[in-house]
Amino acid sequence: MALRPSPNHDVIVGSREETKAIATCDLCRASLEERDLACGLLGVTNQRAVDEADVVVLAIPFKHVAPTLKALTGFEEKIVISPVNPIERTTYFYYAPPPEGSAAMMIRGMLPASAVVCAAFNNIAANKWKVLGEELDYSVAVCCDDGEAKQKVMEIVNSISNLRAYYAGPLAAASIVESVTPLLLNIARFNKLRDVGVKFA
Amino acid sequence: MALRPSPNHDVIVGSREETKAIATCDLCRASLEERDLACGLLGVTNQRAVDEADVVVLAIPFKHVAPTLKALTGFEEKIVISPVNPIERTTYFYYAPPPEGSAAMMIRGMLPASAVVCAAFNNIAANKWKVLGEELDYSVAVCCDDGEAKQKVMEIVNSISNLRAYYAGPLAAASIVESVTPLLLNIARFNKLRDVGVKFA
Repeated sequence: MALRPSPNHDVIVGSREETKAIATCDLCRASLEERDLACGLLGVTNQRAVDEADVVVLAIPFKHVAPTLKALTGFEEKIVISPVNPIERTTYFYYAPPPEGSAAMMIRGMLPASAVVCAAFNNIAANKWKVLGEELDYSVAVCCDDGEAKQKVMEIVNSISNLRAYYAGPLAAASIVESVTPLLLNIARFNKLRDVGVKFA
Repeated sequence: MALRPSPNHDVIVGSREETKAIATCDLCRASLEERDLACGLLGVTNQRAVDEADVVVLAIPFKHVAPTLKALTGFEEKIVISPVNPIERTTYFYYAPPPEGSAAMMIRGMLPASAVVCAAFNNIAANKWKVLGEELDYSVAVCCDDGEAKQKVMEIVNSISNLRAYYAGPLAAASIVESVTPLLLNIARFNKLRDVGVKFA
């Protein structure tokens, strides 16, 4: 899960191996303390992270999503954010969605009906989250079918660095948000750039 | 076709009806003269436009592309720029590519093998081209299979206002460029914005 200091929420890091989650939290805590920042941080198993969180961010590679979700329970009434992008690569990166049309729609199909899935943070390079000294100055498209969850997710987005949330339609429209990521990877690769993001202007 | 003053190239406007092309050129000339700008402008039939141009910009709605191309000849050795986006709409806009995978790939299949198709200008709102007093400050993804044509198209992009060209891979990758446009339309619609464009940053 992406880690940024925030006065508004505690961050629970889940992993299949609890020791890994704890190590990640230790690393983050050290990095935050260097900057005199504080943030609630807890490293736990994936199942405990789901049980304790109000908002679950599925920050895992697409290929791990289905096996991970199959091993977990307790998503009822949760807001689940999917930053997941199904991407494949030959000489270039391309969008390779599952039969459901997008990672977000596949995830929705795997969770109980009372969970609300939102696509968000799809187009921010993982590396950018780690550089706490740099502003995150990007646009974030949010797709969601539930008004209240959408509002909450957009508030989270807007509370982080200089990110700006834009509602981009129902979850069925998430495929065109996810597919921006292989475009950004191609642009980075073919123009010798790193960690390219996007701004809607 | 999009019209911007340029010292580097003349602009030939094609239409099914020559009188419409001439009227468009008259309008553009008046607008340019107001600003003391000059540009070679010629209004002709679509066929004559193809015959006389080195670079053909297929600035027409997706549904008109196939019938228009079927009625024209003479694309041999030409560079053909596709800014075309196959988009449909229900309560939101979505990407609706033809069986070839993208408008760009469909166009390539309809033209002689010696024509080179490049996707470019896909994500700039038509309205923005008309406002000559405003800078066009956007990123432009260019997809193309031919190195020389790619270079020429990127030079054209970079010669226009403050547009910045980024090579985004082979023509087969154009679908993820085209599909950015329905995302921009959704963002405009759901956030009460107009003519949203994109910057890679």
